Amino acid sequence: MRFDHVGVATRDAAAMANLFGALLDAPIAHRETFDGLDVTFLDLGNGYLELLEPIDDEGPIPSYLDREGPGIHHVAVATPNVAAALETASEHGIELVDDEPRQGAWGHDVAFLHPGSTDGVLVEFVER
Amino acid sequence: MRFDHVGVATRDAAAMANLFGALLDAPIAHRETFDGLDVTFLDLGNGYLELLEPIDDEGPIPSYLDREGPGIHHVAVATPNVAAALETASEHGIELVDDEPRQGAWGHDVAFLHPGSTDGVLVEFVER
Repeated sequence: MRFDHVGVATRDAAAMANLFGALLDAPIAHRETFDGLDVTFLDLGNGYLELLEPIDDEGPIPSYLDREGPGIHHVAVATPNVAAALETASEHGIELVDDEPRQGAWGHDVAFLHPGSTDGVLVEFVER
Repeated sequence: MRFDHVGVATRDAAAMANLFGALLDAPIAHRETFDGLDVTFLDLGNGYLELLEPIDDEGPIPSYLDREGPGIHHVAVATPNVAAALETASEHGIELVDDEPRQGAWGHDVAFLHPGSTDGVLVEFVER
């Protein structure tokens, strides 16, 4: 597996993209509306920062923002086979948020592990 | 700049290293005691997970663990020149935690930006 991206919950993805673009020399690689979110990927060369701005009140990001405020939400690792990665996780007693791969942003299959099983770190697998 | 690592605050780095090593196929790349912390870097091929376990009550990680519990603490980007990166950050009105580079883990010069200026995301520059 390899590092894929850090997901960031924000209330203003455009402002963050401007700021982080300038600070980190990270241009916008991809932007789409997905699953009630304005999703922007900033290119770090060997991975991405994913900015997640809710456009409605549904899903986990708005409640995360209410509870925690803006900040780092998850870390995603790329694997050639999300289903196999989930099986390995299950074998290690990890609770899964997604029992099987589902379509995520940018058209990739993804799945999340439950942070209660991974010492508070929300881990996403991405089949990129 | 490039992605360098995600820093994780934990109360049991050895257990996390075992679990994440198995889950993410990420072997230990480096381990040291630094600044009151047991610091372990797990190799993701194109970057690292840095596990930060306090060995005393000093510094920001113990208070972070008390306040937030274990989880993702910061994201670090590698730059050839931390001093220049700090100057750029200052020019963009970013509040600095470190006004100038200081020695961090693994012998690298590092500096942190204040998360209040970066929408809750604690950013570290690393001269690697």
